[in-house]
Amino acid sequence: MVAVERTLPSDESRALFGLVQDLCAKELAPRAAEYEAAERFPREVFRTLGQAGLLGLPYDEEYGGGGQPYEVYLQVVEELARTWLTIGLGVSVHSLACYGLANYGSAEQKAKWLPGMLGGDQLGAYCLSEPQSGSDAAALTTRAVRSGDEYAVTGTKAWITHSGQADFYTLMVRTSDDGAKGISALLAENGTPGLGFGKPEKKMGMRGSVTAQVLLDGARVPADRLLGAEGQGFSIALSALEAGRLGIAACAVGVAQAALDAAVEYATSRRQFGHAIAEFQGVGFMLADMATAVAVGRAAYLAAARRRDAGLPYGTEAAMAKLFCTDMAMKVTTDAVQVFGGYGYTADFPVERYMREAKVLQIVEGTNQVQRLVISRNLTRP
Amino acid sequence: MVAVERTLPSDESRALFGLVQDLCAKELAPRAAEYEAAERFPREVFRTLGQAGLLGLPYDEEYGGGGQPYEVYLQVVEELARTWLTIGLGVSVHSLACYGLANYGSAEQKAKWLPGMLGGDQLGAYCLSEPQSGSDAAALTTRAVRSGDEYAVTGTKAWITHSGQADFYTLMVRTSDDGAKGISALLAENGTPGLGFGKPEKKMGMRGSVTAQVLLDGARVPADRLLGAEGQGFSIALSALEAGRLGIAACAVGVAQAALDAAVEYATSRRQFGHAIAEFQGVGFMLADMATAVAVGRAAYLAAARRRDAGLPYGTEAAMAKLFCTDMAMKVTTDAVQVFGGYGYTADFPVERYMREAKVLQIVEGTNQVQRLVISRNLTRP
Amino acid sequence: MVAVERTLPSDESRALFGLVQDLCAKELAPRAAEYEAAERFPREVFRTLGQAGLLGLPYDEEYGGGGQPYEVYLQVVEELARTWLTIGLGVSVHSLACYGLANYGSAEQKAKWLPGMLGGDQLGAYCLSEPQSGSDAAALTTRAVRSGDEYAVTGTKAWITHSGQADFYTLMVRTSDDGAKGISALLAENGTPGLGFGKPEKKMGMRGSVTAQVLLDGARVPADRLLGAEGQGFSIALSALEAGRLGIAACAVGVAQAALDAAVEYATSRRQFGHAIAEFQGVGFMLADMATAVAVGRAAYLAAARRRDAGLPYGTEAAMAKLFCTDMAMKVTTDAVQVFGGYGYTADFPVERYMREAKVLQIVEGTNQVQRLVISRNLTRP
Amino acid sequence: MVAVERTLPSDESRALFGLVQDLCAKELAPRAAEYEAAERFPREVFRTLGQAGLLGLPYDEEYGGGGQPYEVYLQVVEELARTWLTIGLGVSVHSLACYGLANYGSAEQKAKWLPGMLGGDQLGAYCLSEPQSGSDAAALTTRAVRSGDEYAVTGTKAWITHSGQADFYTLMVRTSDDGAKGISALLAENGTPGLGFGKPEKKMGMRGSVTAQVLLDGARVPADRLLGAEGQGFSIALSALEAGRLGIAACAVGVAQAALDAAVEYATSRRQFGHAIAEFQGVGFMLADMATAVAVGRAAYLAAARRRDAGLPYGTEAAMAKLFCTDMAMKVTTDAVQVFGGYGYTADFPVERYMREAKVLQIVEGTNQVQRLVISRNLTRP
Repeated sequence: MVAVERTLPSDESRALFGLVQDLCAKELAPRAAEYEAAERFPREVFRTLGQAGLLGLPYDEEYGGGGQPYEVYLQVVEELARTWLTIGLGVSVHSLACYGLANYGSAEQKAKWLPGMLGGDQLGAYCLSEPQSGSDAAALTTRAVRSGDEYAVTGTKAWITHSGQADFYTLMVRTSDDGAKGISALLAENGTPGLGFGKPEKKMGMRGSVTAQVLLDGARVPADRLLGAEGQGFSIALSALEAGRLGIAACAVGVAQAALDAAVEYATSRRQFGHAIAEFQGVGFMLADMATAVAVGRAAYLAAARRRDAGLPYGTEAAMAKLFCTDMAMKVTTDAVQVFGGYGYTADFPVERYMREAKVLQIVEGTNQVQRLVISRNLTRP
Repeated sequence: MVAVERTLPSDESRALFGLVQDLCAKELAPRAAEYEAAERFPREVFRTLGQAGLLGLPYDEEYGGGGQPYEVYLQVVEELARTWLTIGLGVSVHSLACYGLANYGSAEQKAKWLPGMLGGDQLGAYCLSEPQSGSDAAALTTRAVRSGDEYAVTGTKAWITHSGQADFYTLMVRTSDDGAKGISALLAENGTPGLGFGKPEKKMGMRGSVTAQVLLDGARVPADRLLGAEGQGFSIALSALEAGRLGIAACAVGVAQAALDAAVEYATSRRQFGHAIAEFQGVGFMLADMATAVAVGRAAYLAAARRRDAGLPYGTEAAMAKLFCTDMAMKVTTDAVQVFGGYGYTADFPVERYMREAKVLQIVEGTNQVQRLVISRNLTRP
Repeated sequence: MVAVERTLPSDESRALFGLVQDLCAKELAPRAAEYEAAERFPREVFRTLGQAGLLGLPYDEEYGGGGQPYEVYLQVVEELARTWLTIGLGVSVHSLACYGLANYGSAEQKAKWLPGMLGGDQLGAYCLSEPQSGSDAAALTTRAVRSGDEYAVTGTKAWITHSGQADFYTLMVRTSDDGAKGISALLAENGTPGLGFGKPEKKMGMRGSVTAQVLLDGARVPADRLLGAEGQGFSIALSALEAGRLGIAACAVGVAQAALDAAVEYATSRRQFGHAIAEFQGVGFMLADMATAVAVGRAAYLAAARRRDAGLPYGTEAAMAKLFCTDMAMKVTTDAVQVFGGYGYTADFPVERYMREAKVLQIVEGTNQVQRLVISRNLTRP
Repeated sequence: MVAVERTLPSDESRALFGLVQDLCAKELAPRAAEYEAAERFPREVFRTLGQAGLLGLPYDEEYGGGGQPYEVYLQVVEELARTWLTIGLGVSVHSLACYGLANYGSAEQKAKWLPGMLGGDQLGAYCLSEPQSGSDAAALTTRAVRSGDEYAVTGTKAWITHSGQADFYTLMVRTSDDGAKGISALLAENGTPGLGFGKPEKKMGMRGSVTAQVLLDGARVPADRLLGAEGQGFSIALSALEAGRLGIAACAVGVAQAALDAAVEYATSRRQFGHAIAEFQGVGFMLADMATAVAVGRAAYLAAARRRDAGLPYGTEAAMAKLFCTDMAMKVTTDAVQVFGGYGYTADFPVERYMREAKVLQIVEGTNQVQRLVISRNLTRP
């Protein structure tokens, strides 16, 4: 692998990063290709990460989180994604699912549920999209009707990572007809009566990761599982996505770095016309462009992360990082296959998998068209 | 499907094209997704095409060919590829495999073998690459030693489309150590003693099409199956590739057109924010760019084809068409998935398959880096 | 100069092309750099072209035109633009200005004015844009009020090529408030009372060509100079633009070819590290991409032109050709400067001028955003 | 102007930045367009900057420098370039010219000359390129022959910013025939006998900045003006360029930011079809891509700068930042003209100037092809 010149802010974070690299080498790397080929969800790997404290890194230590700045947390996500995108993305999605409770929950709610979500065995899912509302998320129709101490929730959530595997589900549901203002957030646990799961989607890549619908058929969610106030759900969802987009950006840099690692290794060993092909500028310049794009993408998400860590607004920067890094990863992984030629088109090398995986990142947590909408609005707002 | 504004030169060619569209609708379209998912080679579809006279279109009627200009032949390949790339590419590869005999064979050789190759039941393979010689094709090491009336051929050919399924194999082999001048072309039939086949490659896409090594272990090829003179093989190979690259360009336009068809259909029916998404310039302009790229690519390969049909040199133009059209197809298919959002990433729609398929076209019959080399040399030659 | 492999349909057109190349070499090439630097309009060069019959090529011979298909006419425009964009674009604009009369004028009007416009000394201007209506052309406010045998025309036309130099002005004016349906076309001659001209714009490039406002202060245009019916003006304007866009596409290919010519010449003579820089793939591949883009662009506009010549609808194809070729020219000219390094940034070589000139082509006769709008609408229309 | 979300590390640096913005508003902005149009060198503006302490920011306070980290210095360069590229680039070049003395000079040399170079009235030039050696800098032929206490220097240096205006010239000269190892660095002052200057180049942009040859006709440079040891010159030159490339990257971000500022302002005020054009996604998404590219570029050069500030190797990162930011600036400024349509092509708005200016940044201090060479070598080195 190409050595990544990485800046970490403290000895503690360097130690943490060493632990992560160790787990990557021992637990992730040996499984990745096989699990993806077998379309097998690595539930046990998430357990290992949880035990190592890696499922709550950016959250308060008070509730069992790691208390790490985003600058560190995201580099961990990147390194996980570099080794196995299903894991890197899974950790990012889990963090997204914890966001609502951690940032909008009452002290009582947090004390009750957050430690289990951050520190242990549990895995989360974030449920916003529906079959008919993707980019237009505020048009969601899943309905929650309050009745006594419960909400009865009915509708279908689509494209849910970890659906069926997760232990808790942060659900965006409609509690009134008032458009975006009629949306509320509920934290449902697996086992809730009426909560079911669709058949896993047959995806182009990320096949080790489960994506499926979450089916709500009058699911009975206790009313004390409402996060924030009724009507606050869309704000919670968007705020969570700002953070989540940084996670996707980090994942994109990770998978692009993996593709670059593989391409450099191949190009320096494969020989044609009496030379390593990396010596031909036609290949060497392509590698240079790939490496530049990866390094620039990393700088971009870290710049946004540092704004978050400093308590500054970072939504525009997060959208930019998501847009840039995922478009970049699509290009870099496609070019990596090209460096390998015919070999790259086969499962004998991981680059074809990286290319299939990268595509999803341009779509999740707001398609890149939605990112452009967000950026453009923030830019031209009076 | 978007109606393609197509120019065909004669009533005969329009009738032929109608036949092709009919076969596409009845024989190809119903099988494509299923066979590709099952990794099943559509041998019987090639038989149907052969019976319909579609396996020898650009060759002399004297030997059972269709006597069609490349302008027509390539649009047929495009339409086949638009419906099923495995078939479009298969027809192009078959034509490539026939090229040596048709253009360098003696009258006797042609009379003996060409009719069966062009008009009937047979399928061909073209064998140039080897595990250690891809872009540097002239470095091939498969050795043919003349002994009496036979050549004993030993070596390994790599990345061979139709390997094991084909009835005849146009083999580039080394008959002397004199570099590119020591290469000769042999036309071996299946069943030749010593001719075997590797395990099919596990590919990112085009899984219905077989790609595997051809293993030559002292294979005994009769000496009357030498095409042209000894030492003429590399010229034959390059000349065949000029024509073959036009076929790849047409395939690329076909798969890109298919992706565009699907994206337009989806974007005009999928609604968000109260409008068909095609009405948003963010999507509409993407479709416009895709449609432009496809139309421009078609114009490019047809311009090169018309030069060939007019008897003019067309090697540079063929390399340009291959380069432009395949890079274009990669981009258009990737963008088509984007238009679909999450749906595009699943096997429920064909665009994810198109994207996986498009990638191989940037690699085969000279990577796009090799095309740039060819173009650059022709451009700067004194 | 790189030899362009050009297909012309007849001996007559080849002879015509030879004449054009001769004029380019003798009349255009020696003046181009100097006139552009001096911001001097080459009125006399247009006279020479008129005398040679090159100002009416695509129009009926009956009225003094050349009776040439667009396939030929556009290649002439390309060759002129390759030598001097001000001339190539000027010829295209002149053709555009003649379009309304030639296609919508009465036999009487055509007999009276067309021969002078096509065959002789005159130069035309096409007046659609206004300071406040560019992409939204139908919002134009220049008002023509009928009074007896005249229209009194008041308003300001903007970005008018040949303003003040032209002998006749095809004016799009408002004759009623009925939006696009309230627009009419008038053919005004220079010297019309009330017709004046603004100060020439200070442009980034194309400085030899005059661009200025046309000022209409109660200009008295005889009513027999109405083209078609009242209210038909917007249709005339759009129809003229379809043809005009092909002219812009040809101009773009011309200037890009000129940049490629210069880059190839420089790259094969400039030596660094002991080699002509074209031998390094970093430069050679750039040249290959440039040459491919130019050839593909040429194929694209010719494909659209042949549709026009065959009497088929070609508006979408013309918009695609304009979009592709002008974006291409911007990229190719920018890369040509890069091939020259520091030398390319100076007026000692023509490439910096080509780059400044190319930019305007992405803007005129519908910005490339407008082209995407046109293509997208045609593509998604039920 | 769009507010730039900028991170500065200290109150001191924020105060410094406020001073810079003030100078930009009062001294630079009012002159920029006029001086560039008049091709007038703003010598007095550099004096004002020198008096404000802005000509020695990244150098030791001991010698009159500002003692600022590169993170701060480069953002100052960016802000200057945002207002006027001739000034921003001039400051960067001046810093480059000081680099050799500051980093390789003896304590005595530094004490004698550095304070004047950093703190006062003087302006510097950096002289490496020659007419026949650009990318292949080590092939330089300007010869310095030691004779007593002097070097007699003969040769021609090309593309020298500030030639004739600068007070001191850091010259790379050949003191032996031993290739790159035969190069030495001399610090010559203006007025040196035999030191002359060529005619200013006629450039596409940056016309307020002087670029000309430096003519050395037996120029007599005192031997105590040798920096470092004989033969160390090429190392000094390359090391200086690593730092210098960061300056160019900052300049590129500055000019791109200026173009973005102008485009956003125009797109939010220009109305077509009843809306501000920024509201159309066709324009809004273009602005979003431009803003993303600028922000990402800034993050990239700052990441490299922070490595330098931390004492880490940063040459690869500097080359990446130069490559990315200057390609980005070329694209962003070209798109900014497009946002303006016809208006953007005229001198009435600054965007056409920004586009002409941006091009030079892809060429200076190592063309972007040389950057790719540097990156590729560092990436694939065993």
